[in-house]
Amino acid sequence: MLQKFLSEEQGHITINNMLTISDRGQNMPASPIRKLVPYAEAAKAKGTHIYHLNIGQPDIETPPVMMEAIRNAHFKVLEYSHSAGNESYRKKMAAYYKRVNIDIDYNQIIITTGASEAIFFGIMCCLDAGDEIIMPEPFYANYYGFAIAANVVVKPITSHIENSFALPSMEAFENAITPKTKAILICNPNNPTGYLYSKEEMETLKSICLKHNLFLFSDEAYREFCYSGKHFSAMNLTGMEEHVILLDSISKRYSACGARLGAFITRNQQVLDAAMKFAQARLSPPGFGQIGAEALMDLPENYFDAIKNEYQKRRDTLVSRLNKMPGVFCPNPGGAFYAMAKLPIDNADKFCQWLLESFSYNNKTLMLAPGSGFYETTGLGHQEVRLAYVLNEDDINSAMDCLEKALEEYSKQVTLS
Amino acid sequence: MLQKFLSEEQGHITINNMLTISDRGQNMPASPIRKLVPYAEAAKAKGTHIYHLNIGQPDIETPPVMMEAIRNAHFKVLEYSHSAGNESYRKKMAAYYKRVNIDIDYNQIIITTGASEAIFFGIMCCLDAGDEIIMPEPFYANYYGFAIAANVVVKPITSHIENSFALPSMEAFENAITPKTKAILICNPNNPTGYLYSKEEMETLKSICLKHNLFLFSDEAYREFCYSGKHFSAMNLTGMEEHVILLDSISKRYSACGARLGAFITRNQQVLDAAMKFAQARLSPPGFGQIGAEALMDLPENYFDAIKNEYQKRRDTLVSRLNKMPGVFCPNPGGAFYAMAKLPIDNADKFCQWLLESFSYNNKTLMLAPGSGFYETTGLGHQEVRLAYVLNEDDINSAMDCLEKALEEYSKQVTLS
Repeated sequence: MLQKFLSEEQGHITINNMLTISDRGQNMPASPIRKLVPYAEAAKAKGTHIYHLNIGQPDIETPPVMMEAIRNAHFKVLEYSHSAGNESYRKKMAAYYKRVNIDIDYNQIIITTGASEAIFFGIMCCLDAGDEIIMPEPFYANYYGFAIAANVVVKPITSHIENSFALPSMEAFENAITPKTKAILICNPNNPTGYLYSKEEMETLKSICLKHNLFLFSDEAYREFCYSGKHFSAMNLTGMEEHVILLDSISKRYSACGARLGAFITRNQQVLDAAMKFAQARLSPPGFGQIGAEALMDLPENYFDAIKNEYQKRRDTLVSRLNKMPGVFCPNPGGAFYAMAKLPIDNADKFCQWLLESFSYNNKTLMLAPGSGFYETTGLGHQEVRLAYVLNEDDINSAMDCLEKALEEYSKQVTLS
Repeated sequence: MLQKFLSEEQGHITINNMLTISDRGQNMPASPIRKLVPYAEAAKAKGTHIYHLNIGQPDIETPPVMMEAIRNAHFKVLEYSHSAGNESYRKKMAAYYKRVNIDIDYNQIIITTGASEAIFFGIMCCLDAGDEIIMPEPFYANYYGFAIAANVVVKPITSHIENSFALPSMEAFENAITPKTKAILICNPNNPTGYLYSKEEMETLKSICLKHNLFLFSDEAYREFCYSGKHFSAMNLTGMEEHVILLDSISKRYSACGARLGAFITRNQQVLDAAMKFAQARLSPPGFGQIGAEALMDLPENYFDAIKNEYQKRRDTLVSRLNKMPGVFCPNPGGAFYAMAKLPIDNADKFCQWLLESFSYNNKTLMLAPGSGFYETTGLGHQEVRLAYVLNEDDINSAMDCLEKALEEYSKQVTLS
């Protein structure tokens, strides 16, 4: 006890003497979703069932071939893999890309620890501290975290719910470009909006990048999940070979988030060489996951048909239920498994907390991701929430029943207070 | 063909227009070991057998319980784990630490993707761009890479082969400390020198850190492999609770490098909270590996006895063979599975390349890590090489036969030229 006291004293004294964490450690954003976790845990402790629409953790079964491949693996020593990932896995990945009409050599692929590491490699290799990266907002919150970690400045360009979060105009991009701008980062189809960029929008991005000499980082982790329209990969923008860096992941595609496997892909040899140095510094990507992921690459092309149908049914149910609620607007997302909806509320952070803390319907409630966490511009997104349709249709319907009741009740609360 | 030509043209034009990689991408060091790889591949293609003493990839069998635990795992969906790692794994890890006399709570552990990520979290949370970190050199080359990535300045303090690479004096540290110094990083027992810091040396580090308010990063990945003397963990420096960050890894301890699992451990709550934000940004550590690693924590305490004996025998053989060669000096390393030796050569980089390119004995040669790659101070380490004793005794003896012959032949070559 005395020792503990002394050690706290010590901590106190040294903190006064400036044993402090870094500015970037301080500025690093906390996850916008996870800050609601304590409220969710308290609700569960009270016995309330929570429909989790807040996080992009799919409920689709991980293909059993992944686990089978790992069960059948035999080795004496679990060695480091090649820093770029096992060659056999990269070759199968290159074949997968050929099937989806993206022509790359396996040597242009670096296997990463999730798309997270691919994003990080991209930022580190193409931007220095103080350089700027343009992202249409709302954007995936962790992009911002990686930029902060790298001392890179995020320049948001706002896309709007009224036109389904389409790509902002070329003019909007050009207004944001400065001599410090080095790259544009998009997610297509988009997390959090579900928007699927058209070929024309991709051509607009090409014009901007060529005119202003910018890299284009394209996160295509949800490529297979397109319901309205066809996916057009940034890798297929001719004349952009040196500009495009593809960020990818098996997490959502094969419902294998826990494997932590992604990819960093580019035809720009200089960028690839620089990324390899970062890859070598961290030695190698996860070993067991690579064995399993290689087996996933052999799945038949129709593997995605049933899953895509399932997601599309859920989307249709979710969006139609939302738009039937008074004062709610939800554009129909073209891809991924997210929707952003505008609710008749004052503050989505407060509302999402209230859902967990003070509301239940038939002993059930739902957890949503407040919109503000996806915007960099202060004041935006306070009436919006992101919903991930990673639950089956019945659960989505029950969750929507909860939301409908909640909005009624919340409007009375606000009027009363 | 035309398209390829046009795209190269395009690339050329845009590069002229300043589509360039970042300075940090440029400055990031290439692995000092891996640059010899093409020469090794060419030697293998000629049919020459290579003894790999260049890389810390153990040949010890990975405990089969790891693979068994993974084979027996059953889940429908491979979900993200907690960002700090599975709670059950962290609890078993805390129990492991108790067994080695380190008292920490499982909540003070963040599971990382290898020790690499733990190093990175430490640097990001405690140092800003332009801040300085002191490392006794020679040091593990990748520390330098992570510092470069974080725009942190490495201040080396030279330790010397003549006194077995003991900790430099307090005075040497104080001469290097500036107002920008935020941390000291050590590896104990040391990679690349094998030196085991004594309790007295650890107390010296404590005095320095308390006096100058510095963080102490202690990489203890080789904790179990101590042959002369007992390991004293930085976590057991009383009064240093707020200062110490333990960087750890299962890679070498359990011969499980490919799992990519390490740990970031501290009693400093502010640092832990900041590190959690970085951990959340990358979502979670590898899933399959965590299942296997949890089983490793249940291995009996005597698991390390046989392995330690094996490494000790190899060390004894290696060091005694080296010191018998004319002009060679190798201090006896107290721990880990590395030795640094001084050879009668002009330039270790040239010599290591020559071993692969121009030498063989009974159709065999050996691959070593040139010493210069472990020093930050220009001009140091050119007569030194690092040898990892990750081969069995017979192979070590054969490798030493090669080295003996090689040194003879090389000295003649140098005299002739």
